[in-house]
Amino acid sequence: MVIKMQISLLEIAEILKEKDNFYILTHKSPDGDTIGSAYALYYALKQLNKKAKVLCSDDIPRRYDFLYKDSIDEDFEPSCIISVDIADLTLLGENLEIFSDKIDICIDHHIYSSDFAKFSYVNPKAGANCENIFELLNFMGVKIDETIANCLYTGISTDTGCFRYSNVTANTHKIAAQLIERGAKSAKINKLMFDTKSRAKVELENKALDTLEFFCSGKGALICITKQMLQETGAAEEDTDSISSIPRKIENVLVGVTIKERTNDEYKISVRTDDKVNAAKLCFAFGGGGHQCAGGCTVKGELAQVKAKIIEIVEKELMKISL
Amino acid sequence: MVIKMQISLLEIAEILKEKDNFYILTHKSPDGDTIGSAYALYYALKQLNKKAKVLCSDDIPRRYDFLYKDSIDEDFEPSCIISVDIADLTLLGENLEIFSDKIDICIDHHIYSSDFAKFSYVNPKAGANCENIFELLNFMGVKIDETIANCLYTGISTDTGCFRYSNVTANTHKIAAQLIERGAKSAKINKLMFDTKSRAKVELENKALDTLEFFCSGKGALICITKQMLQETGAAEEDTDSISSIPRKIENVLVGVTIKERTNDEYKISVRTDDKVNAAKLCFAFGGGGHQCAGGCTVKGELAQVKAKIIEIVEKELMKISL
Repeated sequence: MVIKMQISLLEIAEILKEKDNFYILTHKSPDGDTIGSAYALYYALKQLNKKAKVLCSDDIPRRYDFLYKDSIDEDFEPSCIISVDIADLTLLGENLEIFSDKIDICIDHHIYSSDFAKFSYVNPKAGANCENIFELLNFMGVKIDETIANCLYTGISTDTGCFRYSNVTANTHKIAAQLIERGAKSAKINKLMFDTKSRAKVELENKALDTLEFFCSGKGALICITKQMLQETGAAEEDTDSISSIPRKIENVLVGVTIKERTNDEYKISVRTDDKVNAAKLCFAFGGGGHQCAGGCTVKGELAQVKAKIIEIVEKELMKISL
Repeated sequence: MVIKMQISLLEIAEILKEKDNFYILTHKSPDGDTIGSAYALYYALKQLNKKAKVLCSDDIPRRYDFLYKDSIDEDFEPSCIISVDIADLTLLGENLEIFSDKIDICIDHHIYSSDFAKFSYVNPKAGANCENIFELLNFMGVKIDETIANCLYTGISTDTGCFRYSNVTANTHKIAAQLIERGAKSAKINKLMFDTKSRAKVELENKALDTLEFFCSGKGALICITKQMLQETGAAEEDTDSISSIPRKIENVLVGVTIKERTNDEYKISVRTDDKVNAAKLCFAFGGGGHQCAGGCTVKGELAQVKAKIIEIVEKELMKISL
């Protein structure tokens, strides 16, 4: 029987200083927080003259290129495997599945985080997992230079919607202040993450908005992004991410749903909610997960069926809450 | 001859503690920073048992209602007139013009701030003028309670695009952290300011995007919002504000221009720029002003003429910079 333990960041720092040859695993469909966490930790370990490698099941979106341009790809056998920002083994993705039962340390911040690693530190009070990594790096005695500051800032900024969401605490801002003092190029990063849209994406948004429909007396709103739309506009899969937040932003909408066509019978659902509704719980019903206000899952079937299923679940949830 | 002096926030704090019966003037077309500055100062003065009143030439947009619901409207003659976030007397607006030569204290953060008050404190390093007010309130010995924290947070958040822009410093985040600790409802405020769109606004955005055109080999982008669009969608004038930021967000665009029809021969121009181009300077050519990356002005004429004029100025400016 393998013993699974919750440990502190200080204890993790001690283990990292002791060991060498690290694999750092990020979650599939990688976002700024998993990438920022991984590369901040990578550069920290390099500072301590360790061997380290970041792995991801999927391609990393191009807009994150600047975070790891100074990294070096080395071949070695791992003696310590760390997962960052991974709440569940299903999030490892196909190519990292082989590590499922080999993860030594899990550093995460999700509310629903399953216990899959030998040692885990899960702190849901952290708005972004990069807040945990920031504290860890301090315990490791690592100097937070501009490169690391950019990684951590990117994770914090992207996971909090640029300090907009309810997961932001005073501590989030205190860390951001320190990262800026250490050279994080905050405005440049935010421009790249939030303020740069390709013409293709602007067009895709318009097409997606044509499908906007409301349900539950306007408390729910739904849009669809089809493969055809992507083809017609030349937009990339990653362009669809921020479109997911549009339906929930409409006045009086408590649950915003975006259905993205993956293959002919598989759809990725993104759910964005008002504080009153738990998005992770809604997605959990379909084997997905997430946070209070943002979640995701994959549903198989015909588009009409998929739509009906998700609307049904959302309607049930909306009926439960007193408004 | 009237002597105009630059003074410190500490000196302003001393004057405010000494005097009574304050008028606090905000700029026309009020935004979160002028309103947040004014009401934070109002509540601070009320804490010191002073009489105070906030004045604005235009109606305050409804989304700011929550900031001043606890204020009391009193009638009194002013003995000290303060302007907040006002860079130039033209920004007083028609209804406050009468105070043009009567302003005792100016507290501002704009780079181009003209010297119109008896005493001025202008600190362009402050991302939002509310950062100046935060420091001032500390010098005044005022307790920053939840009400004041909400005012200051709103100003900072709105003037920095929710901590996105290049005007954000480590200090901006440090102040935000303190405001959250003192009860600022950051997530609620941001949702109201950035994440809530009426259906009318979503429709208006789509219509505005239909007019999108590019110039200077795609380095400039321009959209128009006509009165007819407002009528057809039922959108309000204030709904047009955030639409102004859309053209600049498109990849490779350095200058984004939004032309809003006011009357048949008057157009309000909003300019948003990349760091490399000074928006305030561009707008200054038409008697307007602003910051490095955001500016505004009003131009008279036919739409086609107005468009040609602004494109000409932008083209000249873009030719000057090395890319």
